[in-house]
Amino acid sequence: MTNLPFAHWMAGVQAQVEDALSDFLPPPEAVPQKLHAAMRYTVLGGGKRVRPLLVYASGALFDADPATLARAACALEMIHAYSLVHDDMPCMDDDELRRGKPTVHVAWDEATALLVGDALQAQAFEVLASADSLPPARLVGMLRLLAQAAGSGGMCGGQAIDLDSVGLSLNLEQLERMHQLKTGALLRASVLLGALCGKDLTAPELEALAAYSKAVGLAFQVVDDVLDATADSATLGKTAGKDAADNKPTYVSILGLEESRALAEQLRREAIHALAPFGEQALRLRELADLIVQRKA
Amino acid sequence: MTNLPFAHWMAGVQAQVEDALSDFLPPPEAVPQKLHAAMRYTVLGGGKRVRPLLVYASGALFDADPATLARAACALEMIHAYSLVHDDMPCMDDDELRRGKPTVHVAWDEATALLVGDALQAQAFEVLASADSLPPARLVGMLRLLAQAAGSGGMCGGQAIDLDSVGLSLNLEQLERMHQLKTGALLRASVLLGALCGKDLTAPELEALAAYSKAVGLAFQVVDDVLDATADSATLGKTAGKDAADNKPTYVSILGLEESRALAEQLRREAIHALAPFGEQALRLRELADLIVQRKA
Repeated sequence: MTNLPFAHWMAGVQAQVEDALSDFLPPPEAVPQKLHAAMRYTVLGGGKRVRPLLVYASGALFDADPATLARAACALEMIHAYSLVHDDMPCMDDDELRRGKPTVHVAWDEATALLVGDALQAQAFEVLASADSLPPARLVGMLRLLAQAAGSGGMCGGQAIDLDSVGLSLNLEQLERMHQLKTGALLRASVLLGALCGKDLTAPELEALAAYSKAVGLAFQVVDDVLDATADSATLGKTAGKDAADNKPTYVSILGLEESRALAEQLRREAIHALAPFGEQALRLRELADLIVQRKA
Repeated sequence: MTNLPFAHWMAGVQAQVEDALSDFLPPPEAVPQKLHAAMRYTVLGGGKRVRPLLVYASGALFDADPATLARAACALEMIHAYSLVHDDMPCMDDDELRRGKPTVHVAWDEATALLVGDALQAQAFEVLASADSLPPARLVGMLRLLAQAAGSGGMCGGQAIDLDSVGLSLNLEQLERMHQLKTGALLRASVLLGALCGKDLTAPELEALAAYSKAVGLAFQVVDDVLDATADSATLGKTAGKDAADNKPTYVSILGLEESRALAEQLRREAIHALAPFGEQALRLRELADLIVQRKA
């Protein structure tokens, strides 16, 4: 698998993840059908699958079992997907387009969107907790890590800070802290859980992967801000220019476009530098850092 | 402890749970403060703590460690509390009063209520996943059980069915299935997790506890419907008469008041009968069945 060109490897992982997500979601014919249909609509058939790709790339460091990686990848993607459904609701970002499709509260209604998010979060923990090929003690640690990344010290906390910062002028440090929680925590969890599918981590391994994750996570957000300011809605599959219109602080609003692009490139190099101890096994993680910085949508 | 009168035992458990919840919630001074303040407001200082009481009562069957029971009890209470916050939002039941206090979206705003619920669900899994005195294999099974009870095959699924049944005339069987998911799944998880804090369960033990939980869970709901139809808002700490006003099917609307009361009493006897194999150790579970049926609020 490591000899495949990156694009082939990526397409292969995305296809595996799509199949696994479909298997791990409740079937559409199970009661309550409407909720299950909306859960499947939310999760299936779209998205770049960045978190699953990080899981598989990190799992490649230690030749982790693909069936186990699929569970970790799907758990992370379900947490991510639920957060998008809730973020899109009228009381949050009030967005009508996501991955090129109407958002859940538009396609169904707000109550359904609320429940879809709630049910997907529970489903994520169920999917990971069912990874029964892992040693139970390691799996417990992985579940704890996922919960921390998703909660008020991670993704939800970052979202709360983001909401409270609308109209404020954050400095670079404050913006960075917000993003480290809002998107960084889940990206870090993706990298760590992928590696943990392979083996228990030594302290130096943990440190190297945390450094990689931090740089990649920030780069991801810097590029997101650049794209929001420069790309069109059709390319992004969501409403472009939204952050500026909402008066939200972004890397572009603080640093300007050119300096933001330079920062993204610097973070890419930091990410790749952090992978040095893993040698050739880190090929996919290096390629993903490149992709995250060079993506167009 | 088994020699304490029930009211003393209950007050002791409630006090222990209140302290443990405070310890297991993020401190109010930690960033983001507003989110943490709202999480603490939601969970602390109120509620009957029915799920924690079931955990401790079931834990008493096998002399489970109190510190471990506190984690299971708090995890369940956090899931329950998050569901109330989301249920109270305008797009769901649109309720302004809960446990005698303004609901979260009234005291703060809808976005905060959404995030409080999301963060509490993650916190619940973190709290249980940190019960490190338990054998990891058993703990993984307990986390899976909690996730199943909370998700679309449990609480969220029941809530979805409930929403879709407004204005419909359900029959008794459909109403029962809805409640078995909406409230029954979490009550069942409370009983099973409490017992699992003590030891792995044999198939007959599991079956007896499931039968007890099913009867108690339905009795709980029947009594809820009776109280909603007969008590006033001040006694309930929430808006009374809400279900009838919302045109929701209830036991009272299907069976009438007297037959609903008789059903609750029959379910209480079934619950107590299911506990026969556990003898004296089941004292607290029997007393809880009595309490659930005889409560006035």
